[in-house]
Amino acid sequence: MILAVDIGGTTCKLGLFDSSLKLVEKWQIPTDTSDEGGNILKDIHLSFTDKLSVHKLSFDDCTGAGIGVPGPVDFEAGTVNGAINLNWYGLKDIKKEFEEMSGVWTIVDNDANLATLGEQAFGAGQNKDDVVMFTLGTGVGGGVIVNNLLVHGAGGAAGEVGHIKVAVEEDLKCNCGGTGCLESVASSSGLKNMAAKYHREFVPSALDDKISSGSLDAKTIFEHAENGDSLSLYLVDKMSEYLGIGIGNIAATLNPSHIILGGGLSQAGEFLRSRILGKFRKYAFPPAVESTDIVFASLGNDAGIYGAAKIVSQYEK
Amino acid sequence: MILAVDIGGTTCKLGLFDSSLKLVEKWQIPTDTSDEGGNILKDIHLSFTDKLSVHKLSFDDCTGAGIGVPGPVDFEAGTVNGAINLNWYGLKDIKKEFEEMSGVWTIVDNDANLATLGEQAFGAGQNKDDVVMFTLGTGVGGGVIVNNLLVHGAGGAAGEVGHIKVAVEEDLKCNCGGTGCLESVASSSGLKNMAAKYHREFVPSALDDKISSGSLDAKTIFEHAENGDSLSLYLVDKMSEYLGIGIGNIAATLNPSHIILGGGLSQAGEFLRSRILGKFRKYAFPPAVESTDIVFASLGNDAGIYGAAKIVSQYEK
Repeated sequence: MILAVDIGGTTCKLGLFDSSLKLVEKWQIPTDTSDEGGNILKDIHLSFTDKLSVHKLSFDDCTGAGIGVPGPVDFEAGTVNGAINLNWYGLKDIKKEFEEMSGVWTIVDNDANLATLGEQAFGAGQNKDDVVMFTLGTGVGGGVIVNNLLVHGAGGAAGEVGHIKVAVEEDLKCNCGGTGCLESVASSSGLKNMAAKYHREFVPSALDDKISSGSLDAKTIFEHAENGDSLSLYLVDKMSEYLGIGIGNIAATLNPSHIILGGGLSQAGEFLRSRILGKFRKYAFPPAVESTDIVFASLGNDAGIYGAAKIVSQYEK
Repeated sequence: MILAVDIGGTTCKLGLFDSSLKLVEKWQIPTDTSDEGGNILKDIHLSFTDKLSVHKLSFDDCTGAGIGVPGPVDFEAGTVNGAINLNWYGLKDIKKEFEEMSGVWTIVDNDANLATLGEQAFGAGQNKDDVVMFTLGTGVGGGVIVNNLLVHGAGGAAGEVGHIKVAVEEDLKCNCGGTGCLESVASSSGLKNMAAKYHREFVPSALDDKISSGSLDAKTIFEHAENGDSLSLYLVDKMSEYLGIGIGNIAATLNPSHIILGGGLSQAGEFLRSRILGKFRKYAFPPAVESTDIVFASLGNDAGIYGAAKIVSQYEK
């Protein structure tokens, strides 16, 4: 059996997979962020102990555990350097801690990376060798898979596709401290950035009330865009343009077969995808256009545990 | 032994490597582009026949041949779809042709890819897992290595780093037919593009005569930049800015340990590198800055045969 974990700020998703990577059971437990998150791994261990015994199994029957963490992971070492949402500070040796508790060989990766791997192997990526995911939410996250393996890079910063610079001339502040990042224009905070910058050029707009009350959100922008509001359409088109350029840049560099769009903003569906696709075709290197599909993530919140199981199978001895 | 070939429009570089990838001998022969390049592979075969016999060896002593071709290669199939500089048109099955001639298992890749692999394995890349090369010449070529392997991508268009869009607002024409590509601003043709666009803002300039006579070249621009000519400095700074953004984008996506600069324009040396590095540090995602070195290619014209030998060792059964 393989143990799969996706630790989030509110819940931990857990999964039990057999050696052929078939999901046997999935469930979730609350994330206890008290005591600087010191109970999180213990709770996970306890929950697996219970669940394995229900299946008349023990940790001895498990070949590996994969754990996804919402923070910067050193993949080789199995450590994470802080995870704000978990109240974890400083360097934590997740691999060592969980191996000592369970006796099961453990591998640790960033949660966005494992969600990408899950989608690549079992979801929208159709198990193709070269796949890149963009998670469009409050920010823009993602992951990069090349030759069937997640890319971590020299300093573990690979897959930070939200921080490619596609909008330098917008000069809008990104959460990373820089300006011009994809995240600064193609996330919910990016859409709000752009609304603040451009709304005076489109008065009156259906967004005016929400802008002045400070309660604007991405869902409202997409709804009004579909209803033809000029400012909302302008913002969605701008976001699509920068995503098209960003995806085009990745296509010229890596030529992946699938670009997967996930995260809350991908709920905008075909209305958004068709616009991104149009801009991608406009901007991308022609030989890379034909071979690249832009698709939506299909595993939802389960992507992380699927990826956690998959990475165990790729690296276990 | 391993046979290594780098086919160019004027000469073919040939190399003989032992099984530990030590270069035994290298030499070159002219490229005969007559008869639609129909003699090229035959000449290479003949030259190897002669050279092997000098070493009292035959093709039976060879485990593989690696061939670099200046055109779009289907890496799985070992075919090339035209190569203008060789007078090759349509689909040519290089792998099959050379295997039938020599009886030696053959692998074929694009010449820029193999030069990148040569530099990664034996040159400036110090055999690190993740390395990206930019070849700054008439255009901008390159190659991408992730997890120690060249990336080809779904349609073979990976590594086309000259066609990432970093200069959309410049709106300058690229050789690919698009606009805004790195190549449209950071190659010798790109520098000429920008000189034509901006020279009126810097009159008089040391470049005026060469611009009006149509004989401007990159070397002249770098020489005058070093002497303080305002237009020349402006052009070099612009080129560096766009390269810094492009390298930053790749660092956020792949976080390679080494970015290798090659090609004729890299002769500008530290004068250029220091400017690119400054812009890279300004624009790149902070966690990726520390782990990425920007270095110059070190193997010159031999990079291709080193890469050809290396790729044989990676894929031979």
